[in-house]
Amino acid sequence: MKWGTLAARAATLDERDRLAQFRSRFRVPDGMIYLDGNSLGLLPHATVERMRAVVEGEWGRDLISSWNGADWIGAPQRIGALLAPLIGAEPDSVIACDSVSVNLFKLAMAGLQANRGRRAILTEAGNFPTDVYILEGVARMAGAELRVVPRGDVVAALGPDVAVLVLTHAHYRSAALWDMAGVTAGARDAGALVLWDLSHSTGAVAVDLAGCGADFAVGCGYKYLNGGPGAPAFAYVAQRHQAGLSQPLSGWMGHAAPFAFEDGYRPAPGVTRLLSGTPSILAMAALECGVSIAAEAGIAPAAAKAQALGDLFIDCLDAIGDPDVQIESPRAGDAVSRGGHVTFSHPQAYAVVQAMIARGVVGDYREPNGARFGFSPLTLRFGEVVRAGRALADVLGGRLWDEDAHRARRAVT
Amino acid sequence: MKWGTLAARAATLDERDRLAQFRSRFRVPDGMIYLDGNSLGLLPHATVERMRAVVEGEWGRDLISSWNGADWIGAPQRIGALLAPLIGAEPDSVIACDSVSVNLFKLAMAGLQANRGRRAILTEAGNFPTDVYILEGVARMAGAELRVVPRGDVVAALGPDVAVLVLTHAHYRSAALWDMAGVTAGARDAGALVLWDLSHSTGAVAVDLAGCGADFAVGCGYKYLNGGPGAPAFAYVAQRHQAGLSQPLSGWMGHAAPFAFEDGYRPAPGVTRLLSGTPSILAMAALECGVSIAAEAGIAPAAAKAQALGDLFIDCLDAIGDPDVQIESPRAGDAVSRGGHVTFSHPQAYAVVQAMIARGVVGDYREPNGARFGFSPLTLRFGEVVRAGRALADVLGGRLWDEDAHRARRAVT
Repeated sequence: MKWGTLAARAATLDERDRLAQFRSRFRVPDGMIYLDGNSLGLLPHATVERMRAVVEGEWGRDLISSWNGADWIGAPQRIGALLAPLIGAEPDSVIACDSVSVNLFKLAMAGLQANRGRRAILTEAGNFPTDVYILEGVARMAGAELRVVPRGDVVAALGPDVAVLVLTHAHYRSAALWDMAGVTAGARDAGALVLWDLSHSTGAVAVDLAGCGADFAVGCGYKYLNGGPGAPAFAYVAQRHQAGLSQPLSGWMGHAAPFAFEDGYRPAPGVTRLLSGTPSILAMAALECGVSIAAEAGIAPAAAKAQALGDLFIDCLDAIGDPDVQIESPRAGDAVSRGGHVTFSHPQAYAVVQAMIARGVVGDYREPNGARFGFSPLTLRFGEVVRAGRALADVLGGRLWDEDAHRARRAVT
Repeated sequence: MKWGTLAARAATLDERDRLAQFRSRFRVPDGMIYLDGNSLGLLPHATVERMRAVVEGEWGRDLISSWNGADWIGAPQRIGALLAPLIGAEPDSVIACDSVSVNLFKLAMAGLQANRGRRAILTEAGNFPTDVYILEGVARMAGAELRVVPRGDVVAALGPDVAVLVLTHAHYRSAALWDMAGVTAGARDAGALVLWDLSHSTGAVAVDLAGCGADFAVGCGYKYLNGGPGAPAFAYVAQRHQAGLSQPLSGWMGHAAPFAFEDGYRPAPGVTRLLSGTPSILAMAALECGVSIAAEAGIAPAAAKAQALGDLFIDCLDAIGDPDVQIESPRAGDAVSRGGHVTFSHPQAYAVVQAMIARGVVGDYREPNGARFGFSPLTLRFGEVVRAGRALADVLGGRLWDEDAHRARRAVT
């Protein structure tokens, strides 16, 4: 396929794009094609005003009265309710709090507690590092065994002693999706609970937690949800597990009556018991703006657009046809589905990503040889994808990075 | 003492106040005497500009490049370094992260791990609730025993099986201070490690963690540090414990090489290993502004002023001489020292606090009968304390709240 054909196809897709107007809700830096919204989403314009209001009005003027007056205290549940339809969650089963890492800890522990008699935690080798690191801490703490097995062996490893299976739905590198329904059903048949990490899916992939019968989930607020750098994360607990749920970070915000100052811990009803300490209200305010926009757009059109953007990028890679470019992500029509980003390996991936950035196309380098490009459905145009593809063609064709460094690197790899 | 004398004394104190100019660094709402900075500190003017810069510039324009370009990645350590002199900490021993609750969990667990062979955690009955709740979770998780004993019995309860003693330095209600040096030495002699919660002291009381030989500490960013609602907390680990420190929330930000995406967890050197997930940069930015001002003022003058403000308030309470007002906080010259706030009990404390708020004097009600007033040294004038005292005299003398409700309440209490 030639560039003119690709550009024409992009123009048609942009014309028909029913989410096109959402781009105007974000600050898009001049001259930048931002293919890194899967790492840090763009700033919504509404967030600028909202931050000013929460800082100057709610904090600066109204001070402590804002806990009730501006319902600061209800932010975790309120954001959870906005998120629920994006991930197919029942009402009152999602809450925004802490980080993905901390929430993984709570829910992996809760899963071990709920599935007593079994003592293994199972996950995938090459999972996002913090997932594995946190599970190491959980296992050490709980006297459980952590089993980290290759992706292809995960389902077969669902033995009779596996208490909790922890998987990242969309792989951080390849964007390969697990078959959430199939794997959850298989785990249930094997007597294991499943904790899904939705960090790389939420906002770019349609997820149906309740429909799949998932037990627990966590996810990230600062990627496709555009909640700001290091935004609070979220956690999901299926309604059937809520009444019995026990998590170890039992702080006062998860107490049934936080301001009664009782001596003993009594968990709040439902997912509120996942709260530990006082949440950052500034961080929550920014997250709420981002999630509100995603909720307004709806996940079905957003997921469809993210797919189409990624498919178009893969067509660009095909058009370039550089034998050094190895696409690591699933393609349209493959048996495995893809999330919102596309990764290819290249022996000089770091230099490629840098050269792209120098041309205003921002992607991500991932050790040791990955170039990763994310396709935020609410902020990108199809035309930008083709322009990014042309920039990549220039970079690869022109070999515009330092050839000596290139040769030196290739000599040792 | 008469009100005229108190007002004159306040005027003299304000004239001599070497911290007086710091008030202009904060937004003080018109007509409000804010005696609740121990719950949520005032907004620094610098924070308004800083938030705009971090939201619109660093996030909105520079996006992902700000992790290095604006040193977002270094915020936890940078804020820790600013905090260190305020709490008598060695360099590289303090880090800003997560909430007080989450940090208590990490360090209580680390203490149990470091003091193996002992299985009890000791704390005070009536400690701030989240401390006790979190320790319940720690004990359940670690198979340890939590002992909650009356304040007067704590030192005697340092038996041979106590691994960690967890105390709040300044009591959230009475502001009574533990003798940090004496208790830490006693615990050391008894073979226990000490974890101090500095939430109600940092910024209002001079603390010398290293001088006392303290092992661990946590503290709060949103009270006297003026870091914003729900600001990130901090954690301290004495240098001698750092190399061996193991904490269970072993997320990627505490890894020795977070972006190497290694399979196994290797803790970062020093206190950085206390980090778990990605911190909220918006929350960190606001905290850094507040901490910077406190660091600029210095803790010695701030602590002296907080004491003097509280002493003046107690003199006002004496001047009122209402027999229903029972001062729960230590006075100047008492054997026990006081932190930055003063609490009195009153049979109708809730109504008293509400009537004060109606007069523009903002304090806190604490169940079941406490009226609590905090004296933020960087934002208050002595004259305001006397005006607050006069407002209280009006409220108490005028019995301006609902007398029927008053009588009904007293009849049942």
